[in-house]
Amino acid sequence: MGYFPEKFTIAWLRNSYRSKEVTPAEVAEEIIRRADRYREYHIWIQEPSAGLMQNYIENLPQDPSSLPLWGIPFAIKDNIDLEQVPTSAACPDYAYIPRENAAVAERLIRAGAIPVGKTNMDQFATGLVGTRSPYGEVKNAMNPELISGGSSSGSAVAVALGTAAFALGTDTAGSGRVPAALNGLVGYKPSPGAWSVRGVVPACASLDCISVFANTLADAKEIDTQARGYDSLCCWSRKYKQQEASVPTKICLPYNNIAFFGEYADIYEPKWEEAKKRITELGIPVEFIDYSIFAEAAKVLYEGPWVAERWCDLGGFVEQNPGKIFPVTEKILRGGAKEEYTAAGTFKALHKIQELKRKAKIMLEDTVLVLPTAGGTFTRKEVREKPVETNSMMGLYTNHCNLLELCAAAVPQNMEDKELPFGITMFALAEEESLVWGLAEKFLEEER
Amino acid sequence: MGYFPEKFTIAWLRNSYRSKEVTPAEVAEEIIRRADRYREYHIWIQEPSAGLMQNYIENLPQDPSSLPLWGIPFAIKDNIDLEQVPTSAACPDYAYIPRENAAVAERLIRAGAIPVGKTNMDQFATGLVGTRSPYGEVKNAMNPELISGGSSSGSAVAVALGTAAFALGTDTAGSGRVPAALNGLVGYKPSPGAWSVRGVVPACASLDCISVFANTLADAKEIDTQARGYDSLCCWSRKYKQQEASVPTKICLPYNNIAFFGEYADIYEPKWEEAKKRITELGIPVEFIDYSIFAEAAKVLYEGPWVAERWCDLGGFVEQNPGKIFPVTEKILRGGAKEEYTAAGTFKALHKIQELKRKAKIMLEDTVLVLPTAGGTFTRKEVREKPVETNSMMGLYTNHCNLLELCAAAVPQNMEDKELPFGITMFALAEEESLVWGLAEKFLEEER
Repeated sequence: MGYFPEKFTIAWLRNSYRSKEVTPAEVAEEIIRRADRYREYHIWIQEPSAGLMQNYIENLPQDPSSLPLWGIPFAIKDNIDLEQVPTSAACPDYAYIPRENAAVAERLIRAGAIPVGKTNMDQFATGLVGTRSPYGEVKNAMNPELISGGSSSGSAVAVALGTAAFALGTDTAGSGRVPAALNGLVGYKPSPGAWSVRGVVPACASLDCISVFANTLADAKEIDTQARGYDSLCCWSRKYKQQEASVPTKICLPYNNIAFFGEYADIYEPKWEEAKKRITELGIPVEFIDYSIFAEAAKVLYEGPWVAERWCDLGGFVEQNPGKIFPVTEKILRGGAKEEYTAAGTFKALHKIQELKRKAKIMLEDTVLVLPTAGGTFTRKEVREKPVETNSMMGLYTNHCNLLELCAAAVPQNMEDKELPFGITMFALAEEESLVWGLAEKFLEEER
Repeated sequence: MGYFPEKFTIAWLRNSYRSKEVTPAEVAEEIIRRADRYREYHIWIQEPSAGLMQNYIENLPQDPSSLPLWGIPFAIKDNIDLEQVPTSAACPDYAYIPRENAAVAERLIRAGAIPVGKTNMDQFATGLVGTRSPYGEVKNAMNPELISGGSSSGSAVAVALGTAAFALGTDTAGSGRVPAALNGLVGYKPSPGAWSVRGVVPACASLDCISVFANTLADAKEIDTQARGYDSLCCWSRKYKQQEASVPTKICLPYNNIAFFGEYADIYEPKWEEAKKRITELGIPVEFIDYSIFAEAAKVLYEGPWVAERWCDLGGFVEQNPGKIFPVTEKILRGGAKEEYTAAGTFKALHKIQELKRKAKIMLEDTVLVLPTAGGTFTRKEVREKPVETNSMMGLYTNHCNLLELCAAAVPQNMEDKELPFGITMFALAEEESLVWGLAEKFLEEER
């Protein structure tokens, strides 16, 4: 058995498999050991087990070169179906056993990837903190007193603590980006529809995306290559081909003051200044823009009728299962049934978003917008005390994204920052995902 | 002054202008005479006048060949802005004087077309009958006792009675197709977003389209060429290029029984059989399909929350103008404020439509669906007596179209039928408008 790095990357695993230094079974054993070591982080709902992984490993063809993701272990957020393993969305009473893999999981498994387990999450993907789960508060990989970010909390921490090479999350309002930033990872959220959401428990069905957490941008790109594809069985699926990474002709940064919050605001703000400095030095024209259309869209998501979209899919279950929902989650979901959310008001909000989309399209043509992924973070204790307010703050720079049909890559400002990582997110129009990849590559290369 | 045909076509006008047989001013005079002759048809809200047309005619360049629509007279539905002429949407108290042309009107005028006046319509484009207007019931061009169809009633009858070569209508649920069928015209409704709706009074903003009525398919196609185009100022605009007409690989006809209604059902049904026979003889494979997904979508529009979309844009005006709305229109619009139309219910309906869209996409790939445009018609008296029921019947085969993002061409089954014209509509996916043009051409050629 070989030496294992602290974090798995596809490149390391691929080399080690091809040179026969390690086998997938040995990697699986190490993952089980690590899952055990980090048990108190509450990463898992279905934890890594030999029983689960063995089947997949046995089904691999002999030659490690025969499949693009041969033997690459990945974690799956527990609102994404994995055949024969319960999907609970972090609500035990909601759990069902799917007969099929979610479309994206299926594509990855066919490419040779090995599912290791199902990860903990903010219940029903409703939250950006990672503590709203009866399976325990997911602890931050770097500082266990801090939140991990959510809702794809377990998926992010699984990758950060080396119990998976990559992990699937979901991202409706920031759930694939906030935990990436807080745990020093890359988080990629494709354009809405670019990856099928068939086999995902709906949160806001019209906005839900599957996302990926990885330790490197190259790994995220490899997963994107395999996961992407039109799915005629998924009503949200759209035809977006993967494009070669390409550098935008312009970068937009907000000239508005960005709000930093919480007790770490003073540490985050200079990190953002540092990130901005690096971006302006990349040799791409930078325009300082009025960020308010994005802030407005974020506000529409947070204060508008979209919570009723959650209620339309989950309301029946909530009504029929009194006392079985995580209290703060139930409170939020029930907000969607409020009388103030009328049909006419919903159309009004939809029209407003349509107009904001139009403006974003003009502003972001061949352009990448860069914002902090989050403007601060909180201790788990703070979030326990003020669960709604703290959660809202976490979404300030993420909520607009799917409403405006953008794609996004969340990347660390400094990969070496192991104490209080800070990340930035790069946004582009749905048809221009290549720009996000191109800029992210350039930004991270620069770091070396 | 030359001889004038009963109906104007672009080809006749173009030839006559180029050979100097007539001038645009002479055509304008003839149009004014005809408008006067057909005064009791209630076609106009702003009737053709020398004052209006003269300006445009004077602005034409000398050479009739210099502009594609040089001197072609067209009528404009009164919910589409024409600079300096009131837009009322058939509600006098709503009227305002626009400072700019609607984007599509502007494109046509720049191409040389001459606006002749603003046409009567079902108030706020809410109706498919053509009688819901304080400006009078628009009479059918062939039989004045019958309805003209709506809501673009005046536009259709203006073309059918030779007071314009073509006319702009709008089409949210069938308003650009039903009046085409009932007056023996071609009605083309582009894919939602293909023509800008900037400068149109919203009915259901997310579904509204501008449409065109013409005496020939070739004329409709010429207008499409000029009217089409992405408009970065219109939030509903989408990039669909005009494609060469091309024949589908398959035609779908419903195997379900099509309901024919009203006292003319017995005349309409054999006309539909005749149309089906002609279609199956075109030499293109025909598949008889289960039409129910389209019927289901139509039902969602009629019974679902979309009436709240009308309320969201017009509710304020209705509330502030008691007694100023056409009674049946007010009743329908107020339906949009009903408490039963909740935000959660709206999202539920949106999800249902998304799933129906998915199914339609599979079914209609490289395929054209053909349905009767309307399954019957009514006398104006019948509609006066049962305004809501009769109206609903008229939309049975049109309502699904924009919800499912289809394009549609309504064409007459028999161009020579001057008594009780019957029409069929050809539907294709938004990205496949070429198929509708291709099939319509083939079908109408066949007739000769």
